[in-house]
Amino acid sequence: MNRKTLFENIKRKATFLCVGLDSDIKKIPMHLLEQEDPIFAFNKEIIDATAEYCVAYKPNLAFYESLGATGLFSFERTVSYLRDNYPDQFIIADAKRGDIGNTSELYARSFFEHLDLDAVTVAPYMGEDSVKPFLYPDKWVILLALTSNKGSHDFQFTTDKNGERLFEKVLKVSQTWADENQMMYVVGATQGEMFADIRKYAPNHFLLVPGVGAQGGSLEEVVKYGINKECGLLVNSSRSIIYADSSENFSFAAQQEAKKIQSEMAVLLKKHGIIAD
Amino acid sequence: MNRKTLFENIKRKATFLCVGLDSDIKKIPMHLLEQEDPIFAFNKEIIDATAEYCVAYKPNLAFYESLGATGLFSFERTVSYLRDNYPDQFIIADAKRGDIGNTSELYARSFFEHLDLDAVTVAPYMGEDSVKPFLYPDKWVILLALTSNKGSHDFQFTTDKNGERLFEKVLKVSQTWADENQMMYVVGATQGEMFADIRKYAPNHFLLVPGVGAQGGSLEEVVKYGINKECGLLVNSSRSIIYADSSENFSFAAQQEAKKIQSEMAVLLKKHGIIAD
Repeated sequence: MNRKTLFENIKRKATFLCVGLDSDIKKIPMHLLEQEDPIFAFNKEIIDATAEYCVAYKPNLAFYESLGATGLFSFERTVSYLRDNYPDQFIIADAKRGDIGNTSELYARSFFEHLDLDAVTVAPYMGEDSVKPFLYPDKWVILLALTSNKGSHDFQFTTDKNGERLFEKVLKVSQTWADENQMMYVVGATQGEMFADIRKYAPNHFLLVPGVGAQGGSLEEVVKYGINKECGLLVNSSRSIIYADSSENFSFAAQQEAKKIQSEMAVLLKKHGIIAD
Repeated sequence: MNRKTLFENIKRKATFLCVGLDSDIKKIPMHLLEQEDPIFAFNKEIIDATAEYCVAYKPNLAFYESLGATGLFSFERTVSYLRDNYPDQFIIADAKRGDIGNTSELYARSFFEHLDLDAVTVAPYMGEDSVKPFLYPDKWVILLALTSNKGSHDFQFTTDKNGERLFEKVLKVSQTWADENQMMYVVGATQGEMFADIRKYAPNHFLLVPGVGAQGGSLEEVVKYGINKECGLLVNSSRSIIYADSSENFSFAAQQEAKKIQSEMAVLLKKHGIIAD
């Protein structure tokens, strides 16, 4: 999916919500455990309930890999289900990969050829040749810039002798590899006031923003400092939507939660002139 | 496996070779493609041929994931085969993972509980809470410090105002999370002269050293600057061993290549007084 289509979907549906499919076998409703593929059954219900209110889904690979090959089957079935039934959804593999060139190529082959995903999250530590193999036409690299966790302070704020912080260097250097049509950045919602700094370096890029909800970030603050003329934000919520309820009504509860966030997003999109009042 | 046992294996077998099982369906000998699980068939023959000459195996997950769930089955079978038949081998999942705490926990569960691996490679960019969940008793985090690829120069050498380079900061800060009994570092063989600098920060740690062979690093130089009193090195070779020959004799060729490297290592271990002359 290209940038234009993504932006059109955001305007048409009045939402920039990404639902994180962090589907943990230890947390899904008990009654699903009787199903042949409980994780897929869970995802399918969540997707059917929330697709109207979001433009993207982000399964985090860790949750699938923790079940071994069985989990990978659930992941593949989920991606196929989305592709077949909701072709307007942007699908992100949250994998945080990055390896030497010939190895990154294989990960890219896996996500973009074996599976038809739109984007993959990539870690920047190994530099250019670890990232470039993920650049495919109409596919996206979403590079970690400033993450939502406490550990982001260990290295990402390291300041060089010119006063440039590591996350700023990542933003600057990576733009020599690809532009805003093939690259997005992960910026945690918990980094509120940093969004203005990020926008100095990446005014036109989409930012994938985890950390609203369970991790404590504020949607309003993210939008205030982070929105641009094409929205430029995909705000992810995982646990607060998918685990809104643990009974047989879980998908209805997830839907209500997604709908609530979508309503807030619609107000903010109007306020910032992205969609008509 | 703890550090003492690893060092004993190194002395007993006079080798610190790690064989990288970067088993690519597009590169393995053609005749294996008739097998029910060609990647496992390839790995099994490689392992049987080389186990005498190495102390560790390092399958890189990318090569398995590129085949989807099927590839993961081959990976799991390979790990089980090693565990059942070669219990003295140290098994490393080269995965370069790292995510927010609750997600890293799942990756750790996958590698250390679902599978009984000894170590996993982890990327440091997201800091402490992304790394700590991988700390298990008698298991290892192998943290990326200075990688073997060209892109290592993009961020890893970034110098802060005190003159400290990012990879040095990674070495220093991560030692507040775990000591040399639970943590190793990845240092590329292509970084030859940097090993002396690394040893200033991590004198007692084991270093996992990729990049000898196909990537051009020199074993002699790595040992000269990197060896310590408990050897402290696991030197990995992947392509130059496993693809030494593409005919039906591939495993014999792999054995000859592993044996050659082991002989060189034995000489170096004697030269540095690790084993008796």
